Amino acid sequence: MKKIAVFTSGGDAPGMNACVRAVVRTGIYHGLEVYGIMYGYDGMINGEIKKLQTHSVSNIVQRGGTILKSARSDDFRTREGRQKAYEQLQKHGIEGLVAIGGDGTFTGADLFAKEFGMKVIGCPGTIDNDIYGTDYTIGFDTALNTALEAIDKVRDTAAAHDRIFFIEVMGRDSGYIAVECGIGGGAELVMVPETKTTISDVVKSLKGLRKTKTSSIVIVAEGDEEGGAAEVMSKVKNEVNDDRMDFKVTTLGHIQRGGNPTAKDRILGSRCGLAAVEGLMEGKTNCMAGIIHDEVAYTDFQDCINKDKPLNKDYLRLVDILSI
Amino acid sequence: MKKIAVFTSGGDAPGMNACVRAVVRTGIYHGLEVYGIMYGYDGMINGEIKKLQTHSVSNIVQRGGTILKSARSDDFRTREGRQKAYEQLQKHGIEGLVAIGGDGTFTGADLFAKEFGMKVIGCPGTIDNDIYGTDYTIGFDTALNTALEAIDKVRDTAAAHDRIFFIEVMGRDSGYIAVECGIGGGAELVMVPETKTTISDVVKSLKGLRKTKTSSIVIVAEGDEEGGAAEVMSKVKNEVNDDRMDFKVTTLGHIQRGGNPTAKDRILGSRCGLAAVEGLMEGKTNCMAGIIHDEVAYTDFQDCINKDKPLNKDYLRLVDILSI
Amino acid sequence: MKKIAVFTSGGDAPGMNACVRAVVRTGIYHGLEVYGIMYGYDGMINGEIKKLQTHSVSNIVQRGGTILKSARSDDFRTREGRQKAYEQLQKHGIEGLVAIGGDGTFTGADLFAKEFGMKVIGCPGTIDNDIYGTDYTIGFDTALNTALEAIDKVRDTAAAHDRIFFIEVMGRDSGYIAVECGIGGGAELVMVPETKTTISDVVKSLKGLRKTKTSSIVIVAEGDEEGGAAEVMSKVKNEVNDDRMDFKVTTLGHIQRGGNPTAKDRILGSRCGLAAVEGLMEGKTNCMAGIIHDEVAYTDFQDCINKDKPLNKDYLRLVDILSI
Amino acid sequence: MKKIAVFTSGGDAPGMNACVRAVVRTGIYHGLEVYGIMYGYDGMINGEIKKLQTHSVSNIVQRGGTILKSARSDDFRTREGRQKAYEQLQKHGIEGLVAIGGDGTFTGADLFAKEFGMKVIGCPGTIDNDIYGTDYTIGFDTALNTALEAIDKVRDTAAAHDRIFFIEVMGRDSGYIAVECGIGGGAELVMVPETKTTISDVVKSLKGLRKTKTSSIVIVAEGDEEGGAAEVMSKVKNEVNDDRMDFKVTTLGHIQRGGNPTAKDRILGSRCGLAAVEGLMEGKTNCMAGIIHDEVAYTDFQDCINKDKPLNKDYLRLVDILSI
Repeated sequence: MKKIAVFTSGGDAPGMNACVRAVVRTGIYHGLEVYGIMYGYDGMINGEIKKLQTHSVSNIVQRGGTILKSARSDDFRTREGRQKAYEQLQKHGIEGLVAIGGDGTFTGADLFAKEFGMKVIGCPGTIDNDIYGTDYTIGFDTALNTALEAIDKVRDTAAAHDRIFFIEVMGRDSGYIAVECGIGGGAELVMVPETKTTISDVVKSLKGLRKTKTSSIVIVAEGDEEGGAAEVMSKVKNEVNDDRMDFKVTTLGHIQRGGNPTAKDRILGSRCGLAAVEGLMEGKTNCMAGIIHDEVAYTDFQDCINKDKPLNKDYLRLVDILSI
Repeated sequence: MKKIAVFTSGGDAPGMNACVRAVVRTGIYHGLEVYGIMYGYDGMINGEIKKLQTHSVSNIVQRGGTILKSARSDDFRTREGRQKAYEQLQKHGIEGLVAIGGDGTFTGADLFAKEFGMKVIGCPGTIDNDIYGTDYTIGFDTALNTALEAIDKVRDTAAAHDRIFFIEVMGRDSGYIAVECGIGGGAELVMVPETKTTISDVVKSLKGLRKTKTSSIVIVAEGDEEGGAAEVMSKVKNEVNDDRMDFKVTTLGHIQRGGNPTAKDRILGSRCGLAAVEGLMEGKTNCMAGIIHDEVAYTDFQDCINKDKPLNKDYLRLVDILSI
Repeated sequence: MKKIAVFTSGGDAPGMNACVRAVVRTGIYHGLEVYGIMYGYDGMINGEIKKLQTHSVSNIVQRGGTILKSARSDDFRTREGRQKAYEQLQKHGIEGLVAIGGDGTFTGADLFAKEFGMKVIGCPGTIDNDIYGTDYTIGFDTALNTALEAIDKVRDTAAAHDRIFFIEVMGRDSGYIAVECGIGGGAELVMVPETKTTISDVVKSLKGLRKTKTSSIVIVAEGDEEGGAAEVMSKVKNEVNDDRMDFKVTTLGHIQRGGNPTAKDRILGSRCGLAAVEGLMEGKTNCMAGIIHDEVAYTDFQDCINKDKPLNKDYLRLVDILSI
Repeated sequence: MKKIAVFTSGGDAPGMNACVRAVVRTGIYHGLEVYGIMYGYDGMINGEIKKLQTHSVSNIVQRGGTILKSARSDDFRTREGRQKAYEQLQKHGIEGLVAIGGDGTFTGADLFAKEFGMKVIGCPGTIDNDIYGTDYTIGFDTALNTALEAIDKVRDTAAAHDRIFFIEVMGRDSGYIAVECGIGGGAELVMVPETKTTISDVVKSLKGLRKTKTSSIVIVAEGDEEGGAAEVMSKVKNEVNDDRMDFKVTTLGHIQRGGNPTAKDRILGSRCGLAAVEGLMEGKTNCMAGIIHDEVAYTDFQDCINKDKPLNKDYLRLVDILSI
């Protein structure tokens, strides 16, 4: 293998740049030529491919976003699109790919690799932490700390006004951010997609807490089965029907995706990037380079995509006990 | 004057605690007894009044929120409520008040002072910076920096995906946060209540910018005449009608009220608190202690409430020139 | 077991408060009475012991330092001191202890437990991450991120002036902070106690890097065998003897101990605190409650104290490869 | 005037990039060509001059350091060096300069302008805030907040261990950072070059404070007449001679120069940059564009250099009163 390329795809996540940097420098360190593909699969199809040098990735380890930009590609879902992408890669003599992204990215990569015999290794880049085959995903720790700092700020206001705040954090299918924020932020309740909490449960808890606490924080993962924070608050308010209880809602939104990565995300991105390149050099393909129990682990794309990564149930128990 | 009391009222703002601390310590320094009233006017009516010591305000200068808590009071709007409040103060022998809050707080304080001959001086505590008689209000600089850091994070994502982001910041009647965020955050457009920007203006600007820029940030003050960020985005999207332009919206919300105060807000809160106490001791009343051109200035409550504080027009010009 | 007590000892670490909170609330949740001992072993000897309630630990999960304060105790090293301490605990009927601290704390606890039959479980509270029996110690992640943010700032200045900066981080016997900072901060070199790097190695590397880089960052753990950052810089400067190379040094110092804990440290502190209490209830003693591979693990005090926790060698390799 | 150039010189300061951006875009907005000179006067002499476009300054408003780099130049102190610099500028047809820096930068600029008839306007870029002709200098607010956040962290540790901490902040000739940090950080004492505080004064104060406070913070400006924080602590320790008082020292150092600029510094940098360009276009020269009382003000270089900017004495009084 002499030439490899790297790209980022799907939602951006802090630490992607650290990962890109590691891919580029590890490749060059081992004597490879490394190319960067802009805008994920779209750029691959359109040939937005450029050679990267050591200094191309200077001073980016600490930046959020991705210098390679990202996009979701409809064209790559067609056989024709993938054919074009393959031709573009051939034009540059690229034999191996490092795909930084999440489930959707890996699904495309797996298909592409099988159709055209391209070698591909993935790196888990998504803030949601919902990928099997790695303890943490690149971006999760930063998103978690961003959300937590926001919760700390909201708590100042909640306490000053004796309010009950419903705070929505990211997590369409996964309660990782919600539950870790809940423990870290001292939340009174956490609502996640993985477990059923009814509106009556919430109302009962809040009424109980009111005897000892003047303000409360409820964290709602955006994908909770009762709805987002605004919907949950509205239902709770109706059922409580007590003017003395002052409910407010806030949705943290896109700030959770950006920002300078934490130490953990920079290191995780760096380790996965290095492992992806060395994996390609050893002939590995159709798998993701993740970190399990502080060691590099390669997991088949099919497992990453299909296997569940359950929430640590200890965490939900912690929220219950610590909010008394 | 031997006994004074301090309270916070209306929306909480970072730096209120620094102000409370300054009132307490300045009072004690000058030989006064200082009382804290909890929950603003409501607590005054209900007699939630306690004597404060030097150490009561230790280790709070760096905290957001307000240790005296805050509330909006319907009862204080009635003559009967104010009568009760006065009796409570008399019970403790309190002769002077420091009222930390905004326009609504001062309106109540002015009326109360006139009705009962109570001495009252205000301190400008609100994140909106819309009070006449002070260059800045306590909490504004912190809210501004919180909003700006959030915008920095959103820009990472906007740039990674070539998106146009509409970001809503606080400011019901005032564009201060929006316009200063806009300059500091390198925004392409700013929409504020003080000036008229039509949807067509926005569309025209965004189309023009697209020739040279791949992503853009539009800051919308919540009180803009075209609506909040979500409404503005929806109107713009309709008028643009171009699928290649990827619009997103985010509302920063309550995080702008909380958090550890910046240096400026701690110092401003401290200066105003000291000035309020020394003003009361000199016999001043029915006025606000603010800082104009780095000097303490006392302004009549009537002027604070009724006079406009116009946006510095240089700032809007800066946004226009610097976003080319 | 009906009554337990908790204390913090040795250097303070962010997340200790989260741990104290977890001990108190888990104890009360399970029907125990929980006492707080002020100032570690000194307070135990002097009887500075007070009963804690659920609300005693409200609003502390996000605070650095320790509400129970900490101290190093000479008296507890004497049999007489420990005898007094035991009598104080007996006076309150305390049957179990949770000791939050590091090696020194556990050494004292182990001896005390064996001498007097007291049940004791430890929680790993130290920023140095050098305790066997847990993947991370409480406070490490915060110290690491604090150091990293400082390095980001110094890099701005290093880059602006084409300087070579020697930055000293904490770590008397351990290079954990140094090496993780090094990867995360994009450092060119890292000097740690665990591996030998001679001054000649450093000079050779810096001269090599100069061909491609205009500025460089060298992270020095305070306990490196060549000395702290100031000493290393002075030796390097002498050996280089080239006026065109602009060397600067900065020592991060005590800021690394304080600050609001990160999400990881709040969660780790909470998990260890809960596990310590439940361990005591199950009859465990003379061991530490840590987290290994995301699961609670109890490790004998003797192992915590005597076994080494080696640095992950992958990390040193990462620094070498990624700084090309 | 058709072509202007901009450079940064002396110590770097956060907000310099915002200022560079404003110069470039304001110039282009008004139809000028704008050049960037690298490494200050050194780069001017060596001809490191390149044309800048609108996009050359994209995405830098939020970055610390300076994209134009900075250096101190010995050659520019010679007539010969300045002659070469002038020739380089002539080669590009540059008729006006914007010099971003402090006193030293302006001294050079003033001389150069007078010798060669070059038009030069300065912008006040230094963290020290010691330049006459502007309320604040670019970088001061960021340095102040960085120092303050560090003090908040140290206070956690000081409080946990009942320690007396001496913290050294920047300020060789000026106590601005020290005194504003002191108020904002709730320091017990502040030592600045502008006022005489003897070691005996410090000892007396600390002994007095010990009756009511268990920990104390003393802020020492690096240029205090009693020495830096380490020297002051050592003298105090000797005079106190009491083992029960636990003294520690920390020097914040270079972290105060870097980091993302605050809102205030971004806005100040932007305003000064715009004013400098428009000043040049109006024919102004040999002056600095600053902001006084929220309005643009141009001050002769000779006044900037020679006139004193005294510390606001209210501030020192605030520290005294609020630390009781």
